[in-house]
Amino acid sequence: MASESADEFEIIRTLFAPYADNAGARGLTDDAALIEGRFVVTTDAIVEGVHFLPGDPIATVAMKAVRVNVSDLVAKGARPTAALMTLIWPRSRPAEEIAVFAEAFGGDLQHFGMTLLGGDTTSTDGPLTISVTAFGEPFSPRTPSRADAQVGDDVWLVGGEIGSAWLGLQLRSGAMKLDEIRRDRDEAQARADSEAMAGHVPDYLSLPGEPFDAEAAWLMSTYLAPFVRLECASVVAAYARASMDVSDGLVADAAKLAAASNVALRIDANAVPFSIPSERWAFSGGDFRNLITGGDDYVVLFTADPGQRGELETSEWAGALRLSRIGAVEAGEGVRVVNAQGDDIPISNAGFSHKLGR
Amino acid sequence: MASESADEFEIIRTLFAPYADNAGARGLTDDAALIEGRFVVTTDAIVEGVHFLPGDPIATVAMKAVRVNVSDLVAKGARPTAALMTLIWPRSRPAEEIAVFAEAFGGDLQHFGMTLLGGDTTSTDGPLTISVTAFGEPFSPRTPSRADAQVGDDVWLVGGEIGSAWLGLQLRSGAMKLDEIRRDRDEAQARADSEAMAGHVPDYLSLPGEPFDAEAAWLMSTYLAPFVRLECASVVAAYARASMDVSDGLVADAAKLAAASNVALRIDANAVPFSIPSERWAFSGGDFRNLITGGDDYVVLFTADPGQRGELETSEWAGALRLSRIGAVEAGEGVRVVNAQGDDIPISNAGFSHKLGR
Repeated sequence: MASESADEFEIIRTLFAPYADNAGARGLTDDAALIEGRFVVTTDAIVEGVHFLPGDPIATVAMKAVRVNVSDLVAKGARPTAALMTLIWPRSRPAEEIAVFAEAFGGDLQHFGMTLLGGDTTSTDGPLTISVTAFGEPFSPRTPSRADAQVGDDVWLVGGEIGSAWLGLQLRSGAMKLDEIRRDRDEAQARADSEAMAGHVPDYLSLPGEPFDAEAAWLMSTYLAPFVRLECASVVAAYARASMDVSDGLVADAAKLAAASNVALRIDANAVPFSIPSERWAFSGGDFRNLITGGDDYVVLFTADPGQRGELETSEWAGALRLSRIGAVEAGEGVRVVNAQGDDIPISNAGFSHKLGR
Repeated sequence: MASESADEFEIIRTLFAPYADNAGARGLTDDAALIEGRFVVTTDAIVEGVHFLPGDPIATVAMKAVRVNVSDLVAKGARPTAALMTLIWPRSRPAEEIAVFAEAFGGDLQHFGMTLLGGDTTSTDGPLTISVTAFGEPFSPRTPSRADAQVGDDVWLVGGEIGSAWLGLQLRSGAMKLDEIRRDRDEAQARADSEAMAGHVPDYLSLPGEPFDAEAAWLMSTYLAPFVRLECASVVAAYARASMDVSDGLVADAAKLAAASNVALRIDANAVPFSIPSERWAFSGGDFRNLITGGDDYVVLFTADPGQRGELETSEWAGALRLSRIGAVEAGEGVRVVNAQGDDIPISNAGFSHKLGR
């Protein structure tokens, strides 16, 4: 069939060229790149209307495409090194946005220490789609899989909070109003926080028709471009038995790890790390089960020998990476979420579907 | 946001599992795979309505997704070894087709000696999209790029014919009628050939409302699932200075090679390999320039030292792989196509747009 015009290809190549490794990627002029070594490799695509909203800023969409892949590498204890990218661009989207996309995508690669090895560009009448294949260099000889959990292991989260992205999506999509996360909050303090930040953050972190709100901005930014911390890879490499990233909701992903390892996972609800606005929302009438099933968290779930508990709890990462021991690996199958008394909390995934379809 | 239900994921995983390498790919249960060595890596996506027609059989769509990537590896002198695949599946397409897709995709990987390292699956309201990242093991220490052509080199094609896929697309899309490729043909012989093959080929190689035609079937099968020959990789590794695969039309791709190498390419029209039906079509009124600009050929274009001409022309591959010396590398820029008298034939890419948009 046909190609873009040579001109169009040339423009796109030029936009992405600054982020290429010219040895392996040959300045993006070739059909293939050369790599050599021992790599963890992963692939993840994001699709408009499925993984992000059509109105999301193109810059954060680019960052999200990078970060959902970085998250997979980090969860395997690997340092990200390089990526290939397929960009499927809607004809209806302004072509000028490609330059913004390229700068954000390339900038984010650089932020994570990655180079662009190559890619493929296509125009489409369908949704914007970005598929990334990412390579990482493992920090340790052993790369933890989902299948390595053992009965008696502690269950840990590292890298951030659960549920903030879900709340951010509710705000951005209009499914939830600003006052739902402001309930029971000190209004004067909220105004002061927001006034201090207003003007220092991008416009897209404001809600149309609402005053700027610092906590809403934080929640929405977590949804738009997850904060993936490279340092988590060191924790995984040093301590994890089984490991995976949490992207589809804590409960659903814990169930996948449990199934792969032929074990059960117990999650202690009161040990799960939430953000301050998420906790306030839950304590003032919100159902916290939305937070642990909502998805888009991009933190790392891992299991470890309980003998390493002391070392992990006192490590330098404990605070900075919000390292949290959230439960234990048990005999059996599936996931149970328990309250402080150890009683099961009923979780029905089907009941929490304020989500984009995937 | 949300995931497919665990069940749906499990079904898809099971469908693709037979094609996984269980060491590196961990039976497709993990988020990442391990690879080690020296690799050529490439990525190419195919999108419904752009690279294939909505009505194309799902099995050949799967094969095409594999082969457009195999073609890139072969053109770099590499033996394909493994792939990652992102499948973006329209909600409107019957889910039963996924099993057919998986079998054809996996079967084609096996045919080329490749294993599946992992992937990602998403539902979409947009077009069916398959993005593949493929890995290959280079046959020689040096991997030819597009930029290595030298003035005085011979220009070669290896792996098949130019233009058959374009004619096949015209037939399948209805842009051309069967009698246009039957002109000046021995009708009795055509009927005999077709009767001998009828019933031995898939239904989708027949045209609706037309008698089965063996040559039309060949042309359409070339468009639907290109015949990529692994042996071409050996020729490239042994002889190529610059090399790339021809996917966007011979003239357009030759222009890319010329630009990357800072040289001009001369193509001798009468030396370009065409199929018998393509030649007959061109000699009975069709404009042959459509064949050399049409695309989807998936053969290899390379340049080589003229000192190797004798060896190449008498090699065992010359016949089987349709090795053809089609021109020369000259000083200057761009591509010129010349007739038997050496006169330039005007080529306007814009004039030959009976193509799907890309």
